[in-house]
Amino acid sequence: MYHSLLKPDLQQMLGEADRDGMSEFCDVLHPAVSAEVLEGLENSEILDVLDACNLRKQVEILEFLPLSVQIALVEDLERNNRKRLTRWLEEMSSDDRVDLLSRLSDDQVEALLPLIAQAERNDIRKLLSFPEESAGAIMTTEYALLPEQITVREALERLRKQAPDRETIYYVYIIDDGRHLLGFVSLRDLILAKPETVLTDLMKRDVISVRVDDDQEFVAGELQKYNFIAIPVVDNQNRLVGIVTHDDAMDVLEEEATEDAHLAGAVAPLEDSYLDTPLFTLLHKRGIWLVILSSAAVATAAMLRQYESVSETYTWMILFLPLVLASGGNAGSQSATLIIRFLAVDDQQTRSPHLRLATRELILGLTLGSFLALIGFTFGWMFVGKTEGAVVGLTVAMVVTLGTCSGAMLPMLFRKFGMDPALMSNPLIAALVDILGVVIYYSVAILLLGNVATG
Amino acid sequence: MYHSLLKPDLQQMLGEADRDGMSEFCDVLHPAVSAEVLEGLENSEILDVLDACNLRKQVEILEFLPLSVQIALVEDLERNNRKRLTRWLEEMSSDDRVDLLSRLSDDQVEALLPLIAQAERNDIRKLLSFPEESAGAIMTTEYALLPEQITVREALERLRKQAPDRETIYYVYIIDDGRHLLGFVSLRDLILAKPETVLTDLMKRDVISVRVDDDQEFVAGELQKYNFIAIPVVDNQNRLVGIVTHDDAMDVLEEEATEDAHLAGAVAPLEDSYLDTPLFTLLHKRGIWLVILSSAAVATAAMLRQYESVSETYTWMILFLPLVLASGGNAGSQSATLIIRFLAVDDQQTRSPHLRLATRELILGLTLGSFLALIGFTFGWMFVGKTEGAVVGLTVAMVVTLGTCSGAMLPMLFRKFGMDPALMSNPLIAALVDILGVVIYYSVAILLLGNVATG
Repeated sequence: MYHSLLKPDLQQMLGEADRDGMSEFCDVLHPAVSAEVLEGLENSEILDVLDACNLRKQVEILEFLPLSVQIALVEDLERNNRKRLTRWLEEMSSDDRVDLLSRLSDDQVEALLPLIAQAERNDIRKLLSFPEESAGAIMTTEYALLPEQITVREALERLRKQAPDRETIYYVYIIDDGRHLLGFVSLRDLILAKPETVLTDLMKRDVISVRVDDDQEFVAGELQKYNFIAIPVVDNQNRLVGIVTHDDAMDVLEEEATEDAHLAGAVAPLEDSYLDTPLFTLLHKRGIWLVILSSAAVATAAMLRQYESVSETYTWMILFLPLVLASGGNAGSQSATLIIRFLAVDDQQTRSPHLRLATRELILGLTLGSFLALIGFTFGWMFVGKTEGAVVGLTVAMVVTLGTCSGAMLPMLFRKFGMDPALMSNPLIAALVDILGVVIYYSVAILLLGNVATG
Repeated sequence: MYHSLLKPDLQQMLGEADRDGMSEFCDVLHPAVSAEVLEGLENSEILDVLDACNLRKQVEILEFLPLSVQIALVEDLERNNRKRLTRWLEEMSSDDRVDLLSRLSDDQVEALLPLIAQAERNDIRKLLSFPEESAGAIMTTEYALLPEQITVREALERLRKQAPDRETIYYVYIIDDGRHLLGFVSLRDLILAKPETVLTDLMKRDVISVRVDDDQEFVAGELQKYNFIAIPVVDNQNRLVGIVTHDDAMDVLEEEATEDAHLAGAVAPLEDSYLDTPLFTLLHKRGIWLVILSSAAVATAAMLRQYESVSETYTWMILFLPLVLASGGNAGSQSATLIIRFLAVDDQQTRSPHLRLATRELILGLTLGSFLALIGFTFGWMFVGKTEGAVVGLTVAMVVTLGTCSGAMLPMLFRKFGMDPALMSNPLIAALVDILGVVIYYSVAILLLGNVATG
């Protein structure tokens, strides 16, 4: 709702080169709102508007722009104004900076690094070295730190000095000389404590932390579980190396949910928003899955070919082929959806109650299968005949049970072998169940209606 | 990983009625961890362990238990110890309390309310009156408040007094005598400011807030967009009525993602975690969708019946029926998945770029369709013959284009009419495309192979 009102104003300011107006635009609005309005402009216009503001504000707004726009701006400055780009990169917060740089080519990064001040350069190199989607890759190194032997009064004094360039000062970590994480105090605790209390007596010692190589999804889950504003990240010697804050955890949760949704729909996950993804990338990410699924459908065709003489004798069978196959696929999709989401959200442990899950799904499959079998039987009878109805009904019951069980078991199996359960997409389960579904359908037909002489 | 280590210890303490041990268990661990361990015990055991702790700690742990366990405990106390239940309800934080009460029956709530102190009772009645999934239903009324004319020193003094029973003191809201929201200061600003500064000069005035009747998904999205720790909730006269905090927003995002995932897999969304949902509820939530989808498949069977004579002449057509139908369904699932997630995550505005989305999907559909048509044509030729291959190929191209466009348009159409786009589940799109797919398949066959005399 903001952009439609503000964009024309801003474009007028640009036309009149009204730098005061543009500076006010940046200062008065929340940087997220400024970013939203700027997103609709040309790169050169965005650069002009930001140029009217001080460096801090420029970078604050930049950090709220979508990554695809940030990259475009950086590539523009790389060609035309390296000095401005260097100042930006030095001023950016450490996690947002690495998010951006990790999307550039290695050559681009290597060309930029020498221009950046030593301290920031080291920080970038360290953070870039962590594997993608690990705690190290999403953490920030700008956290508030205190030694344990000072008083609350002194602590507050020091926090005042640290505050301007720390991501948060609401959670403060206490370390020893070797940077080992000893404890934690919240600013709330500091405000409530007597000024002369020593931190040793105030801090909580059993700090819940994550390891730098933990998966980002686990990190976000921990933050969510404990309702933390931030969680400390330590290396394998319990030395504090960074923190992950609530806003980044929220973005991770959303990113992972999107990734799982895309996989469930048989789309290889996108890096950017749908509209920011080039058509060619979408073609590739969808095409690859469609080819896999088509291959499975070709296998179904080959299987049907084995039963060609049966099909020719019982020509009515084609009528209920879609029903039979869809029943199995749909029941399988339901189970896979429930199990994959359960594994992602509720069950962060490696030992999940496999047996209980399998039993539940088996009962569900049998019950749902029997019920749907009734529908199949009724219409089979109505459209063709009683025995044919029985063929359809019996097949539906078996296929639904099979679909339910494989939809539940395959994601758990994937997880067991260390793969992402979400890779077991719904259409893939449907495609696999299709092949077996054909075998069941024809076997039941032969059983109930009698075999036919092969032509 | 915690429970496996701690549960046996705790059970031993229970056996020995070791109240000191149990009290230490509750005090030393983070309440989320205690809750995780307790979750595996019987209700009566949970009540015994909690009984060893002070009221504050009992409630802290209770609030981290899954809602299904909280409800079971409340129902137990309702029968056996109403006094303890009353104390719990009075001590709980206002948002968690309403979450719990809203899951009880109206009769249960009406029986409990008279036992609760007046202030809390009014708070409960007010919060229960907001529609489910609105800002009002998820907000807490325990926020930090200050008037505008005091100094920073005085503000910190007052915050110290408010701190113990406020959900957060990191964001403080400034109101006038009529409770109208005037401004906002963060504790960070207060710590950094000179003690004699008056809040009027320090506070930010353009406070970003949400309305009490805004949808919870929008509220969580705003919090995420601005990286807030909390967002204020106002009524239609801009009077502050509550705040929604980051942890609740994160839960909402996850809940909504789960709901969308379930819908995409054709499961009516569950209220509890998969394992906490009774089998009967699952049967109902899955069965209802399977019946809808089976009805669509019966319609497909009826459609196929119209072409019975064609099927009898061109008996090979059954081979590629699954391929043809799956191609359309899979392409449609992909589009629906991408568009639904895009609408949920990136596009909170009501005016989305429909035309651009539709054009993109049309191009994608035609390109993917042509490519998959090649596969269909090749195997059609191999398995049957060249003209038959052409029938399959041409059908696949058309069905994929149709699937892509309907997968993209139907969710947008749902949204346009104010319905949840996610209701347009992937299997439903596949089922709808199936019916048209049959018509296309047979029409193309008649066109290319010639019509047949009806038997």
